[in-house]
Amino acid sequence: MEPSSGSRGAGPAAAAVAAVLPAGGSGERLGGATPKQFCAVQGRPLVSYTVRAMERISWISDIIVVVSPENIETMKSIIEKYGHKRVTIVKGGVTRHRSIFNGLKVFAENEFSNQLLQKPEVVIIHDAVRPFVEEDILLKVVMAAKDHGAAGAIRPLVSTVVASAADGCLDHSLERARYRASEMPQAFLFNIIYEAYQQCTDYDLDYGTECLHLALKYCKTNAKLVEGTADLWKVTYKRDLYAAESIIKDNLSQQVCVVTNVKEDVTQVSLLLHESLKSQIKVEAGSIRLSKNDGYLQDIFSGQCYNFVCINDKKYEIEETRQLVDMLEQSNIPLLYPVVLISVHLDVSENTSCSIGMEELTRIKKFAREVKKKNILLYGLLIQ
Amino acid sequence: MEPSSGSRGAGPAAAAVAAVLPAGGSGERLGGATPKQFCAVQGRPLVSYTVRAMERISWISDIIVVVSPENIETMKSIIEKYGHKRVTIVKGGVTRHRSIFNGLKVFAENEFSNQLLQKPEVVIIHDAVRPFVEEDILLKVVMAAKDHGAAGAIRPLVSTVVASAADGCLDHSLERARYRASEMPQAFLFNIIYEAYQQCTDYDLDYGTECLHLALKYCKTNAKLVEGTADLWKVTYKRDLYAAESIIKDNLSQQVCVVTNVKEDVTQVSLLLHESLKSQIKVEAGSIRLSKNDGYLQDIFSGQCYNFVCINDKKYEIEETRQLVDMLEQSNIPLLYPVVLISVHLDVSENTSCSIGMEELTRIKKFAREVKKKNILLYGLLIQ
Repeated sequence: MEPSSGSRGAGPAAAAVAAVLPAGGSGERLGGATPKQFCAVQGRPLVSYTVRAMERISWISDIIVVVSPENIETMKSIIEKYGHKRVTIVKGGVTRHRSIFNGLKVFAENEFSNQLLQKPEVVIIHDAVRPFVEEDILLKVVMAAKDHGAAGAIRPLVSTVVASAADGCLDHSLERARYRASEMPQAFLFNIIYEAYQQCTDYDLDYGTECLHLALKYCKTNAKLVEGTADLWKVTYKRDLYAAESIIKDNLSQQVCVVTNVKEDVTQVSLLLHESLKSQIKVEAGSIRLSKNDGYLQDIFSGQCYNFVCINDKKYEIEETRQLVDMLEQSNIPLLYPVVLISVHLDVSENTSCSIGMEELTRIKKFAREVKKKNILLYGLLIQ
Repeated sequence: MEPSSGSRGAGPAAAAVAAVLPAGGSGERLGGATPKQFCAVQGRPLVSYTVRAMERISWISDIIVVVSPENIETMKSIIEKYGHKRVTIVKGGVTRHRSIFNGLKVFAENEFSNQLLQKPEVVIIHDAVRPFVEEDILLKVVMAAKDHGAAGAIRPLVSTVVASAADGCLDHSLERARYRASEMPQAFLFNIIYEAYQQCTDYDLDYGTECLHLALKYCKTNAKLVEGTADLWKVTYKRDLYAAESIIKDNLSQQVCVVTNVKEDVTQVSLLLHESLKSQIKVEAGSIRLSKNDGYLQDIFSGQCYNFVCINDKKYEIEETRQLVDMLEQSNIPLLYPVVLISVHLDVSENTSCSIGMEELTRIKKFAREVKKKNILLYGLLIQ
């Protein structure tokens, strides 16, 4: 096994972890022409949400997206448009297992020689059409894979499972409590899953779909089963796209980013605000500073954090707010839903007279009207 | 077996069919306080859509809704508000099977003596939280139940099913192609399912959920398995409520009802319009006449048919349109989304001059502005 890079910090200690996302499906069950992973949800392809869910986790070093040959250009343009990082596109095979196998080869074979990547200790396999995966479950399956060689998320069965006889009649039904639905993510020691695929018969490569089964059959590895949450569900039917859209809308309206340029002595205020907001809504970032070259802020733009609280303590300046609006516009996010931007001015001067003049107020109001056309709702707040 | 009533016409020949809808669940998986069957979808409780799906089928004689004791009043008010017909409310038991058994007893025991209903030949069992069931699949399971004693809708498995060993690791995974998810609706010869419940052990009544299993275990009846469509899915999680809402919105915008008061010689026109619309959208009713006491029109209002084309050939009168708007308002439908109402005036007079005066036109425009506030979009169309 390769020595692990261990450079990624807060995740599973000293393990190099990569993720393979099979995204080669045709999405027949959706009843549409566009494969489901490329269907737009709030104006953004589903696969982009899933990639985003992976790339925001710092301890995942490489993200391999496996797409069918005809979608390679589409995938490239998605990566460019949404600024995805650490992603390698790999050409898929004709079946799911063959696609995953191709994804694993980039770490081991020279078939894709000009991009041979560092072999990870653990590899996560996750569907491109399960966009709501959280770090918590990813960490759990990775840690379990380190201990057991393989691990996968499971969920209770929603329906009873039945076996039919040759005549199309019920043969028997399974006792629901004894079985679980095998979901994604799954994780494997790289060497185990790679060996399983190398040993794998053509029949299994063509007709199987379940990686845990291959690890068991070819490497005698009994995967650890980890209870997952309801949000692991797979976008399968058109109704699932509707659901994904509503969930994303909900998330958008409940996320806020606090931006501040204030001096040391008032930083405390923004920290307090951050803490206080946290109990109500999801606060994506703490106190961050506004700077045009700030990659972190760009990451937030490319993520799902659409609302901002902007704190400053200088004489009221709309320049700063204007700068945030500019960056927001340049960030290629389709602003389908209003972004709320609250500009808070902390007046810490000794001067008790109002620190904002009528002229300035008029300018702010005018600017707010301008940006409203761009679907940005700007509110000002003066705290003395 | 009771002689069947056979009075309901176009359905399964000469079979009395009833439906039992267990609606006693607590909906824990939704994560909300309101049980999912009572959650509002477009302002209307989910169970009301499912009842509606059953009552629009003329060959279903009785609809038994089984609810937990604390929800009986809620269910009564839903039936009253949405004008549901042929519905009997029954008090549920502590488990799903006990609730279904209670539902069946209204046809056989004097426990609910003051409302003993005529025993059906076939009984449908369907979840209150599967609102999109179509007549087609109901007919299929009923016919199959007549032949085989029991029948149930099935769907392909979305996930692989796995069995875990005592240590929480994978024991084996099932070959996906050999198994199916057992869904609803299911149908049974009444005598078979009723006997199964009478024989049923307390353990099965408390821990089982699957009716097909009871028919097999206690009556040696191998149910016929019938492939169902994707819209049979069960509202289980919050995301499913989102999906249901989107599907209902979609349906609303694609349904239209043609209303006409025209004389014999132009009825043909409305028939042609009906035919022509049918290829584009769902036309709920053909040529129906407007009358305040028209139960049929009331049925349409209480259903999901929100858009209207109103055809007349008299001198242009807004009275008729006004009447439709009044009826619409009185019908208690929450008009969350605009109802489109197109008033078509067929001018069949020999007179080639315009049959509508400026004054009349102004009155129509004013009326259109008025009803717009009520979320009704009124358009006029003059055809000479």
